[in-house]
Amino acid sequence: MPTYFTSAPGKVILFGEHAVVYGKVATAGSLGLRSNTLIQNRTDGLIQVNLPDVQLVSAWKIKDIPHQTTWEGYPYPPSTMNMTLLEQLGTFVDLAEHTNRSQAAIALLYLHSYLSTNDDVDMAGGIQGGYDFSVRSNLPVGAGLGSSASYSVCLATALLQLNGYLSGEGTKEDKRDLINQWAFQAEKVIHGNPSGIDNTVSTLGGAVMFKKGEKIEPLPGFQSLRFLLTNTRVPRETQVQVANVRKLQEKFPSVVNPMLDAIHEISVSCKDLFAQEDQDRSHLLSRFGELVDVNHGLLAALGVSHPALEKVREISSKLGLKSKLTGAGGGGCALTLIRDDVTPETVAVIKQLLEAEGFQCMETQVGGPGVGVLTLGAPITIAEFLSHDRAYFEAIQHWTYFS
Amino acid sequence: MPTYFTSAPGKVILFGEHAVVYGKVATAGSLGLRSNTLIQNRTDGLIQVNLPDVQLVSAWKIKDIPHQTTWEGYPYPPSTMNMTLLEQLGTFVDLAEHTNRSQAAIALLYLHSYLSTNDDVDMAGGIQGGYDFSVRSNLPVGAGLGSSASYSVCLATALLQLNGYLSGEGTKEDKRDLINQWAFQAEKVIHGNPSGIDNTVSTLGGAVMFKKGEKIEPLPGFQSLRFLLTNTRVPRETQVQVANVRKLQEKFPSVVNPMLDAIHEISVSCKDLFAQEDQDRSHLLSRFGELVDVNHGLLAALGVSHPALEKVREISSKLGLKSKLTGAGGGGCALTLIRDDVTPETVAVIKQLLEAEGFQCMETQVGGPGVGVLTLGAPITIAEFLSHDRAYFEAIQHWTYFS
Repeated sequence: MPTYFTSAPGKVILFGEHAVVYGKVATAGSLGLRSNTLIQNRTDGLIQVNLPDVQLVSAWKIKDIPHQTTWEGYPYPPSTMNMTLLEQLGTFVDLAEHTNRSQAAIALLYLHSYLSTNDDVDMAGGIQGGYDFSVRSNLPVGAGLGSSASYSVCLATALLQLNGYLSGEGTKEDKRDLINQWAFQAEKVIHGNPSGIDNTVSTLGGAVMFKKGEKIEPLPGFQSLRFLLTNTRVPRETQVQVANVRKLQEKFPSVVNPMLDAIHEISVSCKDLFAQEDQDRSHLLSRFGELVDVNHGLLAALGVSHPALEKVREISSKLGLKSKLTGAGGGGCALTLIRDDVTPETVAVIKQLLEAEGFQCMETQVGGPGVGVLTLGAPITIAEFLSHDRAYFEAIQHWTYFS
Repeated sequence: MPTYFTSAPGKVILFGEHAVVYGKVATAGSLGLRSNTLIQNRTDGLIQVNLPDVQLVSAWKIKDIPHQTTWEGYPYPPSTMNMTLLEQLGTFVDLAEHTNRSQAAIALLYLHSYLSTNDDVDMAGGIQGGYDFSVRSNLPVGAGLGSSASYSVCLATALLQLNGYLSGEGTKEDKRDLINQWAFQAEKVIHGNPSGIDNTVSTLGGAVMFKKGEKIEPLPGFQSLRFLLTNTRVPRETQVQVANVRKLQEKFPSVVNPMLDAIHEISVSCKDLFAQEDQDRSHLLSRFGELVDVNHGLLAALGVSHPALEKVREISSKLGLKSKLTGAGGGGCALTLIRDDVTPETVAVIKQLLEAEGFQCMETQVGGPGVGVLTLGAPITIAEFLSHDRAYFEAIQHWTYFS
């Protein structure tokens, strides 16, 4: 009865937010802030769930949960969502609808219905089965950093791992694809109509380029970059910002369209930058910083910045650092590139200045590994798992990554 | 022996700075801040010059100044600059070279050499001739607001008027063209290789569109607009900014070129805006403000803004007003559009906030009349002329305009 940790990163959009709505290429990378999950068998027939980040602490009897034994495409998820099952589960969890808590619970039970194998065995052998499922996330919820995708990837990986789907002979690519597809199912439960970018980045790690309606492609040669991530705590209003850009584009298409083209070309230039072999890393970072600067400028010109985001720019620019908003803008988060030559003292100063404005700062990297699994030698208590902090999980060296 | 005032506006670039370097269209308008000139005959053979704005107070004997009696293309200026004359005059004025003061003096003497007719008459009749020439300008010198062009247009008009070139039967267009061509000569004396845009805007008034190597065209239907002009007092560094944009364009041509296209299209959209007949003025101003906003954003994205210019944007944006840098950027001036519905109280508040930052604010309009002449009934003293303030000249109703 093994105990597993699974771990999956959040994501940030590096370049191309908003332009992606108009069919342009965008670039996203995995974020060093991750969700970490404990999954281990129980023997009392219960799923014991602890998700403190969304205030979900609950236990369900496995025998009460619907179970799908066969389906088209096994072991990959069915091509269409099982709406009947979704409705059943909605009634079953009996939590206020469409809260982070209820969506997280339903996503878990939806994947459980397909992937859980040990409850059948338990019935036959008289054992009750069940498992502990706990998640701690270092990602702020609802900040555009892919916290739900990192949850979905952790969840899919945990259930696939516990039920033996990842221990077969398949290639790493096959296993990664299986995880990503089930994580996408969980994302659909949570979001309705997700793009699939967040779960893909979280599964693969590194950086990807994507375009509406086209396959998400890893960005070749991408090197991990250090960033200071600043949450302005100004609520994002994604729909409002998207609508404002649309209004501007409809008023002045001849002006706005080439701006969207320019943003598209920033992602292409970023790709070209990492494709150059043997280049000096400080040159790479300097060029990347310039792209950061220009992309923010174009987003501001499209009207999606915010005084708080401009404040981040003002403070970082005084220290010679390049920042841009990330995501829909109008609030939310900004990324500040920390070049390799930036001293810890400078980072401390900028953090202090930003925090004095009421912002929340986190040092992190972009482009690190995707989903990972760790098999523990012995069961641990949920309390012990929940007591571990970000540094504990980051210090673990022997994750098995699928990227 | 009549006494004349001449008056000519400065200019501001409304849209297209920097992009114009790459062959894109830009838009400029005449500025409500003007230079005003007194010219009247003397009988002692002296040109008595008072230009307090460039610290030039001098008197020259007419008989010592070279005189060109005939030239190709008369009365229009010769097609090439008279370099021999320029050298002679440089020695004659005996002021430190290439100061605003020496250039203003040489420009005056250069035009005098061609245009002065009364010194010949004086010699024959035993009268000594001569004239007073005094200028007061409301334009800050070296702020990118066309102060030298407004001086050049005032100067050309004053000498043409005093010497009878503007009193013939020619059309207004002919006279305007004669003024503009001589003003361009003065600009060449002052700047070496001017574009001709500043003197054209100053002569014509209103607004113009221009493109490198093409004819400067008036912007049809342009309506006068109110602006708050803010001088950040941060010195401009035109060459540095132009070079920085060039560097960015060379590094990322595929990104920067569509940005320059977008700026081009802002001027085109501005033209289209004013070409629409019977449109609501508040709608026009709202659209114009959006173009102001986007153009500044694009300039900032090109890297030519400055914290002081961003401060102007921040303050005006809090009061719901749209601003952009004007000119080369990296310092210099910003324009804030004052819509018709903006109350005097709001204008007072924004001025107060901007002045508290150490900036200099001037309320003015863009798109007013070009060069004007006023014939006074009786001579006045230089001291009296110099005592008049901006409001005095603005209150004069019966200027003869050539636009």
